[in-house]
Amino acid sequence: MRGDLEGKMILGAFLQAANCSNYAASWRHPASDPSFLTASFYQEIARTLEAGKFHFGFIDDRLAMPSRFGDSVEDTIRHGIRAVKLDLIPVVMAMSLATRYLGVSATYSTTYHAPFHIARLFSTVDHLTGGRAAWNVVTSLNDSEAQNFGVDSHEGHDTRYDQADEAMEIVTGLWDSWADDALVLDKGAGVFADPDRVSRLDYEGRWLRSRGPLTVPRAPQGYPVVMQAGQSDRGREFAARWAEVVFAVFRDIESGRRICADIRDRSAKYGRDPNDVKVVTAAYAIVGETESMAREKLAYVESLAHPSDTPVLLSELLNYDFGQHSADERMTDAHLDAISGSRGMAERMRAAGEEYPTFGDFLRQSRRGSIWELPVFVGSAAQVADEMADWFTQEACDGFMVAAPYLPGAYQDFARMVVPDLQRRGVCHEDYGAETLRGNLGLARP
Amino acid sequence: MRGDLEGKMILGAFLQAANCSNYAASWRHPASDPSFLTASFYQEIARTLEAGKFHFGFIDDRLAMPSRFGDSVEDTIRHGIRAVKLDLIPVVMAMSLATRYLGVSATYSTTYHAPFHIARLFSTVDHLTGGRAAWNVVTSLNDSEAQNFGVDSHEGHDTRYDQADEAMEIVTGLWDSWADDALVLDKGAGVFADPDRVSRLDYEGRWLRSRGPLTVPRAPQGYPVVMQAGQSDRGREFAARWAEVVFAVFRDIESGRRICADIRDRSAKYGRDPNDVKVVTAAYAIVGETESMAREKLAYVESLAHPSDTPVLLSELLNYDFGQHSADERMTDAHLDAISGSRGMAERMRAAGEEYPTFGDFLRQSRRGSIWELPVFVGSAAQVADEMADWFTQEACDGFMVAAPYLPGAYQDFARMVVPDLQRRGVCHEDYGAETLRGNLGLARP
Repeated sequence: MRGDLEGKMILGAFLQAANCSNYAASWRHPASDPSFLTASFYQEIARTLEAGKFHFGFIDDRLAMPSRFGDSVEDTIRHGIRAVKLDLIPVVMAMSLATRYLGVSATYSTTYHAPFHIARLFSTVDHLTGGRAAWNVVTSLNDSEAQNFGVDSHEGHDTRYDQADEAMEIVTGLWDSWADDALVLDKGAGVFADPDRVSRLDYEGRWLRSRGPLTVPRAPQGYPVVMQAGQSDRGREFAARWAEVVFAVFRDIESGRRICADIRDRSAKYGRDPNDVKVVTAAYAIVGETESMAREKLAYVESLAHPSDTPVLLSELLNYDFGQHSADERMTDAHLDAISGSRGMAERMRAAGEEYPTFGDFLRQSRRGSIWELPVFVGSAAQVADEMADWFTQEACDGFMVAAPYLPGAYQDFARMVVPDLQRRGVCHEDYGAETLRGNLGLARP
Repeated sequence: MRGDLEGKMILGAFLQAANCSNYAASWRHPASDPSFLTASFYQEIARTLEAGKFHFGFIDDRLAMPSRFGDSVEDTIRHGIRAVKLDLIPVVMAMSLATRYLGVSATYSTTYHAPFHIARLFSTVDHLTGGRAAWNVVTSLNDSEAQNFGVDSHEGHDTRYDQADEAMEIVTGLWDSWADDALVLDKGAGVFADPDRVSRLDYEGRWLRSRGPLTVPRAPQGYPVVMQAGQSDRGREFAARWAEVVFAVFRDIESGRRICADIRDRSAKYGRDPNDVKVVTAAYAIVGETESMAREKLAYVESLAHPSDTPVLLSELLNYDFGQHSADERMTDAHLDAISGSRGMAERMRAAGEEYPTFGDFLRQSRRGSIWELPVFVGSAAQVADEMADWFTQEACDGFMVAAPYLPGAYQDFARMVVPDLQRRGVCHEDYGAETLRGNLGLARP
């Protein structure tokens, strides 16, 4: 089944290079370290993750702060609703240089970066980290991002993925432009590398072109690990072709089993070994010495939410200004058609009762920005470990992106309490078994 | 004159994130460390520079390996003629995290990167290094780079600078989009930042647009230090408007005095204080315990050059395939017109005798890729320090970009032998006087 990992789950940390964790209200938690603009903040998290034997830290990104709600950044700034987003590469370098085995995954958009730049950058990170780099491939669709980059409007959703396919062909082609054994480094003979083992790419796509060769010799991992998170039909097709770690959010074991099976089926079409596609899912873990202590923690975390968090973040997610409507206005088909990504949400609500929700209901039930946006594993270490082991052994996922309601304390708790319990159950590795991220994930070297 | 620096010279190191130093043959030197694909290689250089009280390491870049000569990378690869170029950001992060005071300057092209990306990236580096970041602004014009990025042809030289002006307006505008005191971080009151102190940019230029605000609060240095190296008329105008450190190559004190005066005169037009524009120039330093030992070192370094170095690197520099001509073919006006940047070189040669040089003479006299491409300060520590002090006190420059014929030994020698001698003469600071690069350069905070 999971041959290379021998029945051990993958542990990733779902991070932001931001003023808050994935939970926007987290910065208001008294235990949150406010030094999010320093290297040491990220290095402390990295060391905590490595102590907890996490395979990697994964950093999400967008190229704009939320600004769709009311066409303004006022609430975003005042309430710190993901207002700060640092560039990820300096952050992952700081994390990797403070650790020895922890993998580092950075989100980078094929919409705003040339494939040659992406290939060179991630290959460099892979070399300087000794083979611990991963790239989370995204395409960008948000108006706020487009405006920062001076772009009028984005291509349609599927076209963006068609372009991303070309970008991947270039990036992987450039990574292959130096053979593994191209470097000779014979000072006496004056031979630096073998020209027969370094080749141009001369790629000519419909949208994208690149000549090559890359200016970076073959990376320690062959390719940095490729991750992807799109959950649309076209996004899953893209993941099935390219991704080695697929990040999928779902709420229960049954959905996870279905999604895993779907991704593995699709990947077979591309001639891939299903073992080379790992599916990880996200959840908050809130653990206490007792269940009631954990529930108190959760209640406190929930109480930090601000009423602006949801409308600001849902406007960003769905690229629609929810500030135009009052809470009791009822949504119409015209609204649902105008709001890309909303129909799925509305259909789930309809299944639960109302034909058309009000905007207020829609916002509330979206859970966007709340702690309930992701599954929450709450309880004693044994209870949290039970739930995670259950999802894993029932094959809902190959592992987890553990999200933190505040930083760095939530990962300290998880590493101290939950990980040893997972290890006792035999579902979590005792230690790193390889020098590279790819090796620790049990992925083949391309 | 140089009020803030109190008569102390600036010391920068002229680096490449590459398989060789600025001297392409350097990789063949027995003392060269071949581990140029590791973080520790750059960290060792950084620690050496900090021990030598260097203000900063400066890393040059191009977005392609040399491939104009014979429209091929064969010689480039075989002889290691700047064949490897890593992305600079991971490299400067590794260097800065191994040091406490050393500034780090990375070259980044306005031709291939959106201003929003550049602003966010360098602001992030400035935060994570505690105010030690610098950006070397370049525009790109080489066909090899264009082909890697899938671009057909570049805009004309002056147009590229007009676009770069717009890019600078956006980048600096985004750096200003958070006021110094915008962050409030009041967890109890739930106020993250003051919305009145964070503003959109809404920049609409002829070529470039960006909305903002940046997703990164104001950087520790206000702006990362801005560096620039263009030496054309338009390039100097750009430098006079934007650059805080101008990197100019010249061969003697008189030229330096003229260039410094020209840059300061031009900067006055933009209402700038001439003390806020520092001019640094490049030279190799080859130092020995005795003069004859240094001359032996130099002769050995020279002997490492390969006949391909010059044609490969001159073809890259002038964006022209010198492989089309035999050495004894005589250049014509048509050739000189076709080779942008060659006329100045040919005119200097003409002053020395021949009406039209042969291609062989032109290559030889260009000195491209040889150790003589830059001035070489060679001798005992006292002799090298004498020459540097002379240039500095005669106001040919505010400091030096010290180039190394091999790594890291040349900087170890320089730090151990030359720097103490410069300090004894009172022309080099005894230690860092500030936490930030800007502070150590005596530059005002924008």
